[in-house]
Amino acid sequence: MASREITDKYFSSYFKYKEGILHCESVPVTNIKSWLEKCGITTSSPVFVYSKTQIVENVEAYQNALQKLGRPTMLNYAMKANMNPTLMSIMKDQGCSVTLVSGLELKLAIQLGFKPENLLLNGNGKQNWEIELAVRNDCMLNIDSLFNLKQTINVARNLKTRARVLLRVNPDIDPKVHEYICTGSKETKFGINEEDLDKILADIKEEPLIHLIGLHCHIGSTITDINVFRESAIVIYNFYKRLKADGYKHLNVINLGGGLGINYKQHAAKTSRPDFSHVDTDHVTCIPSPAEVISVIDDVFGDDNVSLILEPGRSLIGNSGILVCTVLGVKHGHSQNYIVVDGAMTEVIRPALYDAYHHIDLAEPSNHRNKDVYNIVGPVCESGDFLGKDRYLSTPHEGCSLVVFDVGAYCSSMGSNYNMRVHPAEVLINGRNIDVIRRPDTLDDILTPYTPVNTL
Amino acid sequence: MASREITDKYFSSYFKYKEGILHCESVPVTNIKSWLEKCGITTSSPVFVYSKTQIVENVEAYQNALQKLGRPTMLNYAMKANMNPTLMSIMKDQGCSVTLVSGLELKLAIQLGFKPENLLLNGNGKQNWEIELAVRNDCMLNIDSLFNLKQTINVARNLKTRARVLLRVNPDIDPKVHEYICTGSKETKFGINEEDLDKILADIKEEPLIHLIGLHCHIGSTITDINVFRESAIVIYNFYKRLKADGYKHLNVINLGGGLGINYKQHAAKTSRPDFSHVDTDHVTCIPSPAEVISVIDDVFGDDNVSLILEPGRSLIGNSGILVCTVLGVKHGHSQNYIVVDGAMTEVIRPALYDAYHHIDLAEPSNHRNKDVYNIVGPVCESGDFLGKDRYLSTPHEGCSLVVFDVGAYCSSMGSNYNMRVHPAEVLINGRNIDVIRRPDTLDDILTPYTPVNTL
Ligand SMILES: Cc1ncc(COP(=O)(O)O)c(C=O)c1O
Ligand SMILES: Cc1ncc(COP(=O)(O)O)c(C=O)c1O
Repeated sequence: MASREITDKYFSSYFKYKEGILHCESVPVTNIKSWLEKCGITTSSPVFVYSKTQIVENVEAYQNALQKLGRPTMLNYAMKANMNPTLMSIMKDQGCSVTLVSGLELKLAIQLGFKPENLLLNGNGKQNWEIELAVRNDCMLNIDSLFNLKQTINVARNLKTRARVLLRVNPDIDPKVHEYICTGSKETKFGINEEDLDKILADIKEEPLIHLIGLHCHIGSTITDINVFRESAIVIYNFYKRLKADGYKHLNVINLGGGLGINYKQHAAKTSRPDFSHVDTDHVTCIPSPAEVISVIDDVFGDDNVSLILEPGRSLIGNSGILVCTVLGVKHGHSQNYIVVDGAMTEVIRPALYDAYHHIDLAEPSNHRNKDVYNIVGPVCESGDFLGKDRYLSTPHEGCSLVVFDVGAYCSSMGSNYNMRVHPAEVLINGRNIDVIRRPDTLDDILTPYTPVNTL
Repeated sequence: MASREITDKYFSSYFKYKEGILHCESVPVTNIKSWLEKCGITTSSPVFVYSKTQIVENVEAYQNALQKLGRPTMLNYAMKANMNPTLMSIMKDQGCSVTLVSGLELKLAIQLGFKPENLLLNGNGKQNWEIELAVRNDCMLNIDSLFNLKQTINVARNLKTRARVLLRVNPDIDPKVHEYICTGSKETKFGINEEDLDKILADIKEEPLIHLIGLHCHIGSTITDINVFRESAIVIYNFYKRLKADGYKHLNVINLGGGLGINYKQHAAKTSRPDFSHVDTDHVTCIPSPAEVISVIDDVFGDDNVSLILEPGRSLIGNSGILVCTVLGVKHGHSQNYIVVDGAMTEVIRPALYDAYHHIDLAEPSNHRNKDVYNIVGPVCESGDFLGKDRYLSTPHEGCSLVVFDVGAYCSSMGSNYNMRVHPAEVLINGRNIDVIRRPDTLDDILTPYTPVNTL
């Protein structure tokens, strides 16, 4: 029976098929829609579903490895990956701090009770009020450029307050990822240019309010090659030793950023075109674990007691979330078949923007027996609105649940209201427990900022 | 003097440099930031600035040409391009109706007082409640597929109400545009497949509640070749005659969609790399006017009294808006220079998503004398966050105003809060008059949907 084929496939510990139905922890994901409706939430599909236990496990994988090191360490969640306050509170309870990229992220992190002095404000284009907010709260800031240093010096002098800074440097290592998420080569907008480095170091030495506490680098995202981490650790650590020798007395931290990939393609072969089954699933079967990355970095630092900060986003949250959609219908064409669902690029823009792969499967057995090769698309009126291409799936019936996997990072946070679509509900599963951790947008939410403003 | 070079350039009637300062109608755009601050709006940059007179002129270009035809016509603004209610009200006052792509768009259009029977609900993935809302209001609906017809029949029967439908067909003509906005070839997710056509027509004939009033096609966006419109008019009109002969008695409308491009590159040569000045500006110098497109279509229909609907988005609103940003700083590197501004992909995603060109220039003379080749980037922490590449510009001073042109369509409406950035203020200029037509988001706006929901 065709429907048996989706029985008992194993996705991760917390997203598993039981008798053909996908469960998040102990909850059949096919029950969530009607559960939301019973709670009075009528916009019940699509819905983001997160596994709490998966998040906790992801954090522990880092924390356990860091705690074994004989050096001070800090695990900073890169909240741009997903700023849902409930998910951030889980990170906090697990001992994480946060790396921020804007003033509002900083405000939220403080509201949520993260210790300000462990927060790091990162960014190549900070506004003065954002720098001020960070300095007032004694947060760390990275310095991305000569003009960013000038801004920071001005703020520190105005506030008569020290600023604890890290220099963001480009080790110029190719992370071998999509160009949009490659951020540490010489060609990107991030980090200090060689040209400006001496000037920046001289300016810092002269300014007592600027405390150079560390070096920062982040070379890209979705990295799967452990050598990339080793090489950048070597480059940064050599630079660190040079600066130490040069007498920067506050210097004691190296922040190697985030960037560790997750295995988006672990099940790719299962839903690839049969005639395309050479889909490149090979090199991603061996993504290094956090422990391996941390051990490689620790080896580079040796018995130098330098502190280590890591700031992962994707590898802490990416695999903890799925998007459960409802099939609106199926379209068979002469050269292409489509499954049309109610989820879209407005919830998951990574396929359109980075040509990213997200695994897709039915969440329950289909009423139909046949299988076919489909593009999975949403209702947004543009051809860039697709969730997956060329997937070999059981033909779903109308109303069938379909799941997009691994959408915990860079999906909800990059969402939009294009086509006046609502940001969907988000729920957190913990064992048998379901919590609504974001309600869907309402028409009012969308229109309120457009109400007339009294002006001059 | 370098700064003189940006004096007196001509962009459009309503965006003009006067003594080196860019004006929108009679307002120097460099004054808007401080004006907003005086109004108590502290998030004053970046800001979307729209010219009311430009919009009115764009609509008139269509309306004048349509009114000269000896046939019934309707101009439906495709509101997905920009759903700002104030801008939509201008469209309404100019006699436009609206084409919608979601239930919330439909609700807003009705709230704004558009006549429901002139509204058209379009979409390849409509939900039942959206179809119901349209049928209850006697709106037109397009039928995109066999399953969409079934949905519509079910709704009409349940409500015991007729549904006025248009069939969306694919003339299979290549619009020669970016694949994400090509929507009328056989390979897209839109429109009825040849395979299903006979079945659909038979089902419609049997169902008295389904009134087939017209045919619909939309082959893509940013089209600059008038032959594309001629060819699709021919294909659709031939099909129309066949159906007329087959006795579909309600049939009297052809909707040729939107898609006419605008001249994003009219000034491209001015800010291209000097060594790259072969930038392909040629084929875009001759974008057909609405009058030309309409005349070509009218010729195809001849003296058949078929009604014509057009549903442009971009060509009604695209050139009416600019994004005024503030320069945060400049970074000179060994292989690449950057101008870092406070606007980002969160406001203008078209460059990252479609590799689209938007003209960029300083809005005021720079304090510096030199020029250089720059990438213009925002503060979002990802390399995909760029607004323009390889532009030859005067080196701006910090705080200088910089403008991204032609952002009236598919920018604000595609905006996001990624990195917890706020959707910026939007202002409408009319002569010397400035109106705030959208206030910037607040932290509260962003966080409210995350407040705990009481559940079961
Ligand atoms: C500076 C910085 N740190 C950390 C991250 C998190 O990266 P990832 O989610 O790949 O771990 C990013 C993301 O782009 C970043 O820009
Ligand atoms: C059906 C339909 N009509 C009209 C439009 C408007 O197109 P444009 O803005 O290119 O005129 C679109 C946009 O994609 C569309 O999908």
